[in-house]
Amino acid sequence: MPVRALWYSRGVLSVLDQRALPGKMRVLRLRTLAATAEAIRTLTVRGAPSIGVAAAYGMVLGKREGIYTPARAAKRLGATRPTAHDLFVGIEVVRSAWASGADVEAAANAYRRRVVEECHQIGTVGAQLFAKTRRVLTHCNAGALATVEWGTALAPLRVARQRGARLFVWIDETRPLLQGARLTAWELAREHIPHAVIADNAAGHFLSTGQVDAVIVGADRIARNGDFANKIGTYEKAVLARENGVPFYVAAPWSTFDARRATGARIPVEERDPDEVAMMAGRRLTPASSPSRNPAFDVTPARFVTAFITPGGIVRPRDLARTLGRRSASARGRTR
Amino acid sequence: MPVRALWYSRGVLSVLDQRALPGKMRVLRLRTLAATAEAIRTLTVRGAPSIGVAAAYGMVLGKREGIYTPARAAKRLGATRPTAHDLFVGIEVVRSAWASGADVEAAANAYRRRVVEECHQIGTVGAQLFAKTRRVLTHCNAGALATVEWGTALAPLRVARQRGARLFVWIDETRPLLQGARLTAWELAREHIPHAVIADNAAGHFLSTGQVDAVIVGADRIARNGDFANKIGTYEKAVLARENGVPFYVAAPWSTFDARRATGARIPVEERDPDEVAMMAGRRLTPASSPSRNPAFDVTPARFVTAFITPGGIVRPRDLARTLGRRSASARGRTR
Repeated sequence: MPVRALWYSRGVLSVLDQRALPGKMRVLRLRTLAATAEAIRTLTVRGAPSIGVAAAYGMVLGKREGIYTPARAAKRLGATRPTAHDLFVGIEVVRSAWASGADVEAAANAYRRRVVEECHQIGTVGAQLFAKTRRVLTHCNAGALATVEWGTALAPLRVARQRGARLFVWIDETRPLLQGARLTAWELAREHIPHAVIADNAAGHFLSTGQVDAVIVGADRIARNGDFANKIGTYEKAVLARENGVPFYVAAPWSTFDARRATGARIPVEERDPDEVAMMAGRRLTPASSPSRNPAFDVTPARFVTAFITPGGIVRPRDLARTLGRRSASARGRTR
Repeated sequence: MPVRALWYSRGVLSVLDQRALPGKMRVLRLRTLAATAEAIRTLTVRGAPSIGVAAAYGMVLGKREGIYTPARAAKRLGATRPTAHDLFVGIEVVRSAWASGADVEAAANAYRRRVVEECHQIGTVGAQLFAKTRRVLTHCNAGALATVEWGTALAPLRVARQRGARLFVWIDETRPLLQGARLTAWELAREHIPHAVIADNAAGHFLSTGQVDAVIVGADRIARNGDFANKIGTYEKAVLARENGVPFYVAAPWSTFDARRATGARIPVEERDPDEVAMMAGRRLTPASSPSRNPAFDVTPARFVTAFITPGGIVRPRDLARTLGRRSASARGRTR
């Protein structure tokens, strides 16, 4: 059975609890906007495309509760996490339907279908890059859990494998919250795709000793010039890939592209609870008097990106602004 | 009270159990060569200079047991960990005393004093580099715990601070075994040196946003051309430091320099138990069917090193071979 991160039916948003994986497969049933906001804030549901869809359904639940205006509902959900652009796209799709009296549930469903379809297109488009590639490194989880279905970074690998590619995936464990070790490993193990989990520290070693043929990651927000925010540590891998002459790909649906932002310079970077670094499984790792810092994202300059894998094709960073301009011209009036 | 990693008296080698820190301060009393070897293998005592001294005393204990030849004792202790050059220097100092009928305890004591004195010299020599530096990043633990007293990377910071420098230290937590989060943080907290622990993934972010003025690390083995092995992840930090124009220093006593090795190409890199990555505090982090890989060291090419901080002065990589050649010429006949 393919993984699905969340699904909605009749006033209930069901989400796979990503904090409990891989140990437990637990489904939470969310019935209110506030519960949805909390699930996003706590990373119960996570990954930019998944939180965009969750927030769209959070808007639907908010309308059903009858206690929010469209603007207040959007503001509440938008305050959960600042970095992922998809969050604001998912909210806006339903807010505008709500404000104009259209069917909000239909709007949220359409948004979910669009994200899933775009991830599938990313898989089809990107698979050609991995037909001959053997060893791929990925960071964090940009799989089905992060995108409702298919994944962004994992979609091309899934499709390439269906077409017969023999892939091996190095998975950065992705401290502090171990989305690689827990979630990406879980997705690949389910599908028997060969892989190994490594400390984030070891990626450079495997790159410099010629054991990585390509790096692929997802993104949380991509500026018009190709600078992009993604899970903390992504920038390190991008620099190391270029240093070692290994291609570095970023896979994302259109909702991750922030066409109104010229560069990555001012992308808001969420700083989370320092105890995510200092504690593990209720046990303190650091001395009691030692502070920790916990930026959840970093911004990678476009010059480190070999190409973006988008639903519309493979786009070099230098062509991105033009591609986004063409898209927004043709979409004007259609989505907002 | 200054930290001391180990001390010897009358047939007992006492070592601070570095696996238990920072939670517990526990001293183990080792009475045999085999117990010493096991303490080195399990990282109860760790850090290249500390394991060199521990192995020297392990040789002393081996002689007292009366069941080893000098060669067999050296072989047993040398099989514990392959990467640190100091291990083999510490063993050889006592082996040659033993084989020639000299006082082995005096030889081990002299070796310990030499390592501690050299680390103090590293502090004095290196402090000038940090007089005006404010924010320093370090990886792993290259403090007193790793070197009996003072430290390598931490020695210049300690001396600079005694001279009035206002330093702040970013500590990479250093997965998988968290020597930064547990041990470096513990040493700095004891001395009230301002610091913050970060996920290894976050170092690039703080470097690229201008929040790091210098990087300093220790080493496990340094080749004649300046290529060096150190804790896994060091190579990543070195590449990121250069990318961001931040100086990168390597501090080490003479026992870490492997003058007979031309380059880092064939430095043996220890691969440790994959469960060090997959498990934490008895809890499995990864899915049961997901393999892990756990190289404990990486090799950083000399071109990423701004300078080596040695007991004899600050040495640029291009001058290292000549410095080592001069040293071995003057030492010939003295140590072996």
